[in-house]
Amino acid sequence: MTTNTGCLFIISAPSGTGKTSLVRALLKTDVNLKLSISHTSRPLRSDEVDGRDYHFVSEEIFKQKLLRGEFLESAEVYGNLYGTSQTWINETMAAGYDILLEIDCQGATQVRKIYPQAIGIFILPPSSETLATRLKTRAQDESTVIEKRLAAAREEVSHVCEFDYVIINNKLEEAVNDLTCIVRSEHLKKERQLVDQHALITQLESTDL
Amino acid sequence: MTTNTGCLFIISAPSGTGKTSLVRALLKTDVNLKLSISHTSRPLRSDEVDGRDYHFVSEEIFKQKLLRGEFLESAEVYGNLYGTSQTWINETMAAGYDILLEIDCQGATQVRKIYPQAIGIFILPPSSETLATRLKTRAQDESTVIEKRLAAAREEVSHVCEFDYVIINNKLEEAVNDLTCIVRSEHLKKERQLVDQHALITQLESTDL
Repeated sequence: MTTNTGCLFIISAPSGTGKTSLVRALLKTDVNLKLSISHTSRPLRSDEVDGRDYHFVSEEIFKQKLLRGEFLESAEVYGNLYGTSQTWINETMAAGYDILLEIDCQGATQVRKIYPQAIGIFILPPSSETLATRLKTRAQDESTVIEKRLAAAREEVSHVCEFDYVIINNKLEEAVNDLTCIVRSEHLKKERQLVDQHALITQLESTDL
Repeated sequence: MTTNTGCLFIISAPSGTGKTSLVRALLKTDVNLKLSISHTSRPLRSDEVDGRDYHFVSEEIFKQKLLRGEFLESAEVYGNLYGTSQTWINETMAAGYDILLEIDCQGATQVRKIYPQAIGIFILPPSSETLATRLKTRAQDESTVIEKRLAAAREEVSHVCEFDYVIINNKLEEAVNDLTCIVRSEHLKKERQLVDQHALITQLESTDL
């Protein structure tokens, strides 16, 4: 009997939904879950760390990797390039780890074509007021960037139907608990358990006890 | 936009798996979850309470109810009759409560015909030794009853594929947590959330923020 590989979770959300904080909190609670670190050609922000938030590379290096077919998905967002390493995903899943992909809806569509078993989770803010406030108070972004983000947020929300689960990020702790429950319950699904618990089920069906 | 009714959860397990303790613990953690109390024609055991464990009725009364079509499912197990009230289920789900049906695989099959949206959860013991020990130490059962239960346990396990989720009841606390996660994640599924969060999604898609 073959063993299961890890689950592949896709998390998407409009900018300003608090997705990154949520993902960081989730990773702290689950040692079996690994976050895919994307490559990007955009500049490092002051609160970011290379290799933790992204692998920051030049546009030239990014395009070389793209040509070599190293990316599972790639996208241009606000004029910057983003991509996800397919090799790392395959190796990490084969080792039994769950993987978390924090990508936009455009990337999610590309990922589903290659991994139809991927589990999509969409995060929504509790209200449009909350979202607007968060986007507008990101001081380091220029107003044209904020305008783009507002339009992109509305566009992202229109893709909610493409996901398997929808979480409202009202209180961080509750939203993290929601994510934890989704990860746990996906492992309890019959299709996975018939593989993971094959020896036990065979023993229970066949012995005289 | 219509609102969602509650979810209908079916929990089945071989005798001796600790299902009843698990269900009682789960009910304590979730005020929105109501346990369907079955009717039965079998005698009350010393540790049971009428109306909590079952509605204990005579075989005559049971058969009258059966003829009036009051039962969603009914079954004869070890020579006793068991049945689930359909009226109670419909009213309780319509009021928005989740319902837990603790029934055997035979009953589960009957329920799925009427409620195809029912979510089936199968509980397994951690080993056949654990199951055998538990069945054999139920002092008040006669040996012929134990033999019947052993055979029935093997038969029940063979129905595991018919359920949506499989939980191993190794440590009670972990198994209760598994159940809690399944209940929570079912409410987070896209199909339910598009109804529950309809107003929010419409607001996010349409406003200028």
